[in-house]
Amino acid sequence: MRDDGRIALGVDVGGTKTEIILAGRHGRKLGETRIPTEPEAGAEATLRRAAEAARTEFGAGAADAAAVGISVAGQVGARGVLLGAPNLGWTGVDVRRLAVAAFGIPAVVVNDVRAATWAEWRLGAGRGARHLVVLFLGTGVGGGAVLGGRLLDGADGIAGEFGHLTVVAGGRACRCGNVGCLEAYCGGWGLEERARDAALADPAAGAALVRLAGAADAITGEAIAAARSSGDALAARLVEETGDVLGAALVGLVNALNPRRVILGGGVMDGFPDLLDRATAAVHARALPAARKRVEIVRAGLADDAPALGAADLALVRRPRMRG
Amino acid sequence: MRDDGRIALGVDVGGTKTEIILAGRHGRKLGETRIPTEPEAGAEATLRRAAEAARTEFGAGAADAAAVGISVAGQVGARGVLLGAPNLGWTGVDVRRLAVAAFGIPAVVVNDVRAATWAEWRLGAGRGARHLVVLFLGTGVGGGAVLGGRLLDGADGIAGEFGHLTVVAGGRACRCGNVGCLEAYCGGWGLEERARDAALADPAAGAALVRLAGAADAITGEAIAAARSSGDALAARLVEETGDVLGAALVGLVNALNPRRVILGGGVMDGFPDLLDRATAAVHARALPAARKRVEIVRAGLADDAPALGAADLALVRRPRMRG
Repeated sequence: MRDDGRIALGVDVGGTKTEIILAGRHGRKLGETRIPTEPEAGAEATLRRAAEAARTEFGAGAADAAAVGISVAGQVGARGVLLGAPNLGWTGVDVRRLAVAAFGIPAVVVNDVRAATWAEWRLGAGRGARHLVVLFLGTGVGGGAVLGGRLLDGADGIAGEFGHLTVVAGGRACRCGNVGCLEAYCGGWGLEERARDAALADPAAGAALVRLAGAADAITGEAIAAARSSGDALAARLVEETGDVLGAALVGLVNALNPRRVILGGGVMDGFPDLLDRATAAVHARALPAARKRVEIVRAGLADDAPALGAADLALVRRPRMRG
Repeated sequence: MRDDGRIALGVDVGGTKTEIILAGRHGRKLGETRIPTEPEAGAEATLRRAAEAARTEFGAGAADAAAVGISVAGQVGARGVLLGAPNLGWTGVDVRRLAVAAFGIPAVVVNDVRAATWAEWRLGAGRGARHLVVLFLGTGVGGGAVLGGRLLDGADGIAGEFGHLTVVAGGRACRCGNVGCLEAYCGGWGLEERARDAALADPAAGAALVRLAGAADAITGEAIAAARSSGDALAARLVEETGDVLGAALVGLVNALNPRRVILGGGVMDGFPDLLDRATAAVHARALPAARKRVEIVRAGLADDAPALGAADLALVRRPRMRG
């Protein structure tokens, strides 16, 4: 786990922007820049532009980098080939090989949520916990885990999809094709869809929320937060249910994986910070005594640059060669 | 992972009997005996009697054993201390230290389901799969996993309680204190309780089952299997629901852990073997495409001696010292 004081590049390729950082010892950020992502231009062009931006912005620093870590919003196979990336459309692309060619240094490729999980463990709210579960509740719900000091990867490199744990068997349809997934209730889209359905089913109860949003179809997390602040009963109930399902999922995860710490991050947590207390209360009330006794449930410690930081750190820790 | 051709003892301390085996290379069973467990006599006396039985039964073989693995039906902490063992009542007992004293050789202590998981991986239906999830559906539902070739242990040595994943949020009460656990639906007690409740709620539908069992309170898994064979609609529905909940849990586990293989064993699987097909169909229909593509779902390969065999093998692999 020593990083020898070397430096690395971290590149987080998102659907709209690509964040590029230069990271030194202990994840210290030495430089940062970003370029727009143009998915339709392809992975090769995107990585070439990222490498150019790094050279322009970081100069000698970029030339000194020992390796580059690429973080991608998609399912990354064990050898750095994208198995699926709905926001980028680069399925089947060998991103690792393209990154080696573009940057001229060894590269690792990792899913963005797993990269952020690693960053939280090494540099953020997960430090010191060798058994860690991370959930990011954004539009969807992503996850990752460090178990026994190792990033959970799975047989195909895609483990950690805790957003697609079935928590409500026979429940709401998830975008993934399953029913009753955590994400279908606690992801941003799931919360908004539940609000819309509730407002349409009971127009009187939904009146305030619909007025605030303009239409039932237009209800956002922000509208739910605002309505709740002004005392709206439906908004309060929606958030309460979100906490109940999140708590139910966390009880199961704590029982199944026995982590020392659980980290909760993402936009839904930012919008409804009291979900942390609700979920924590559920775990302390209902998880197995030996598993709940010492578990801590905390908010994420890093900002939006966590995936790029984690990818850079993984690039140093995994010591990739030029040919994988 | 080499075992050097050494031999080890494996001792599985159950609530009613203690199984003692002598295991050689590749888990080959060189000898086997069993004694009744008398929990109230305490752990020290039980382990002493097991050591005596091993010496009597295996003679020179027992003297040659390099280590002993103790498998216990309970929550085993990281250093071999029992954190909870409802069927034995030995909470807080340092089983590892007592085993070293009784057998005079280094000892490891492991939960019985984790020991069986390890045995399935090394010697049974899990061979060759470096990412493996195991579920044993007996009276309760126990579990274990091998991830990246390592036995999942967790921060307190108690990971793998997949029977206490929440699958039906807000659902049936589980004996563990949570609601909606997999075990509350698919463990033997959960199945029987659901049958009783259904028979009491709808006496006409439950008539055949109650007649077969003698009383609603006395409905067993065997009675459900018999009623179903003779065409009873309620029994068929109960098994169908069991498969639905098991499938929902497996979809989530496959998404979360991305195993290459899932092993299902235990008395409920023996009684209702077609649950395997139902659960497999759910995973193939609803798990994330990249996670379900190469996953295999199979029956357990070993018999009741799996915990003792797994404990013996772990004792060789982990190379314990006399003082932990």
